[in-house]
Amino acid sequence: MTNFHFDDLRNQINEELLQIYNSGPKSLVEPINYVLAGKGKRFRPVLTFLSADACKGNVKDSFPVALAVEILHNFTLVHDDIMDDDSTRHGKLTVHQKWDHGVAILTGDAMLSLALLTLQKCSRNNQKILKVFTDGLLAVCEGQAIDKEFESNKNVSVDEYLNMIDLKTGYLIGMAAELGALSITENESYCEALREYGYLIGRAFQIQDDLLELYSDTKKMGKSLDSDYLLGKKTYPLLKIKEQNSNELESALKIAGDNVNLGKELIRGILESTGIKKEIQKLISDMIKKANNLLIENGLFTSHFKDFSLIIQNREK
Amino acid sequence: MTNFHFDDLRNQINEELLQIYNSGPKSLVEPINYVLAGKGKRFRPVLTFLSADACKGNVKDSFPVALAVEILHNFTLVHDDIMDDDSTRHGKLTVHQKWDHGVAILTGDAMLSLALLTLQKCSRNNQKILKVFTDGLLAVCEGQAIDKEFESNKNVSVDEYLNMIDLKTGYLIGMAAELGALSITENESYCEALREYGYLIGRAFQIQDDLLELYSDTKKMGKSLDSDYLLGKKTYPLLKIKEQNSNELESALKIAGDNVNLGKELIRGILESTGIKKEIQKLISDMIKKANNLLIENGLFTSHFKDFSLIIQNREK
Repeated sequence: MTNFHFDDLRNQINEELLQIYNSGPKSLVEPINYVLAGKGKRFRPVLTFLSADACKGNVKDSFPVALAVEILHNFTLVHDDIMDDDSTRHGKLTVHQKWDHGVAILTGDAMLSLALLTLQKCSRNNQKILKVFTDGLLAVCEGQAIDKEFESNKNVSVDEYLNMIDLKTGYLIGMAAELGALSITENESYCEALREYGYLIGRAFQIQDDLLELYSDTKKMGKSLDSDYLLGKKTYPLLKIKEQNSNELESALKIAGDNVNLGKELIRGILESTGIKKEIQKLISDMIKKANNLLIENGLFTSHFKDFSLIIQNREK
Repeated sequence: MTNFHFDDLRNQINEELLQIYNSGPKSLVEPINYVLAGKGKRFRPVLTFLSADACKGNVKDSFPVALAVEILHNFTLVHDDIMDDDSTRHGKLTVHQKWDHGVAILTGDAMLSLALLTLQKCSRNNQKILKVFTDGLLAVCEGQAIDKEFESNKNVSVDEYLNMIDLKTGYLIGMAAELGALSITENESYCEALREYGYLIGRAFQIQDDLLELYSDTKKMGKSLDSDYLLGKKTYPLLKIKEQNSNELESALKIAGDNVNLGKELIRGILESTGIKKEIQKLISDMIKKANNLLIENGLFTSHFKDFSLIIQNREK
């Protein structure tokens, strides 16, 4: 294991991201660098490094895949923001708001090609890496498609929701971890354990996101004003309440339509009085434990991973 | 050289395209198959086959790249149609018109992942093929970005325009030819000659398109009602007129704003009286000759290529 600080890794990633695309048409160079200069948490590329490190490799060898993963993630954000009509992201205007829809579509498309070009700088397992990456791209598109389909479906089950977030979020985080391993080793059990770790962390991360959205004010989440509510999006806590207290939820959502804050307060009340909040917190905690155990069993649970899991577990935004 | 008919190749491509994506979220499966069932001319994958054949390979070995090229081309059409707000394509409603913007964005994104997955079925030169493909994707994004930038630029030169169409159209057609070679051989001079052939054909194709648009009625072109004019897009014939008869063009375009057909008639009049039309036709013909000669010099000019060049030269839509 190499000693490093997450902040140093993040700084390095941020520097490298700004080297990716500096010559080209102005209407691409500007928005692409605007996006890549965003204040993302860089969870995914950090996870890629951690995986490479746990496989006893040189973290530098995983740089191309780490950057490609982060660019891919940002590509999905740019296009998702258009589809969801979100106006801010990481505290800044979204690309389609600052420029227009055409620029945002093209920015995403070009970022995808840049991610693929960056990926090709990897010096090991390129075929496998490309396959995992492309499967990930398809998964995230399918997840987003299902998420949009949910908007006009009143009968989404908890299982259907979990399948959707696995595709939309879990798959890419699993991929971030797996690609870190693949940039270093052919050891399949390492790759599998790390992918599964990421997958579980991704699921926990999304459920936690759903919960945080109910407890954070809009500024803290850095997203547009409760757009998910206004669009009638499904989230894990709401689906869990619906299973038990369908009527109460119905009336809270009606109120949220007029007064988001009051609606949220009511929903928080239900979550707490029914014990669903505790149940969800336990679920998140169990998933992270399970993820950690997978790494422990495979001799991959470095102290960096321990810290990483803790950061995920305790994050407040 | 293998004996085959272009129509048989097209039919095979059409059949294979409909096998690409049949299980997944309905909101992706339906629009993707709607696009892939479109009545495109399949110029690009046919060109891929011709290249593979000229390199004395089994045409079947180039199937994955031929399909990937066609899927990539269709991905660009879906996204370009959103940006240009075109309402019909190949005589059918565009995806964003039939569904909505979100579905169309996602359809394009997923098609790109399908193109990449298809590409990976190739059994030779995969690394090189991926590099050429990804460079092509970036080029086409840059070409589209420059094309959009032109909309608000009154001083586009002929050279700037040619650079734009090389990126937006020529690059992908050159790539279609090059990938056919790469699916068969490592011979660099073959790959280069075929790429250059495609590149020149692509440039000729686009200039011809610009000219045909002035002489075809809307139905024949299968595109929306003269949207290119209404959006103030630059085309080769208009830029050539502008070099010589700026004032006359100005007034014809003003008239076209109110009455497209009358405006077009006036422009055709200028093209013919100034000899610019003949000049453009000669340019197209010279480019195709140059492209053919490149193949002749490299012993790649099969009778299929002769037919292909003739089809391009003589096409009326």
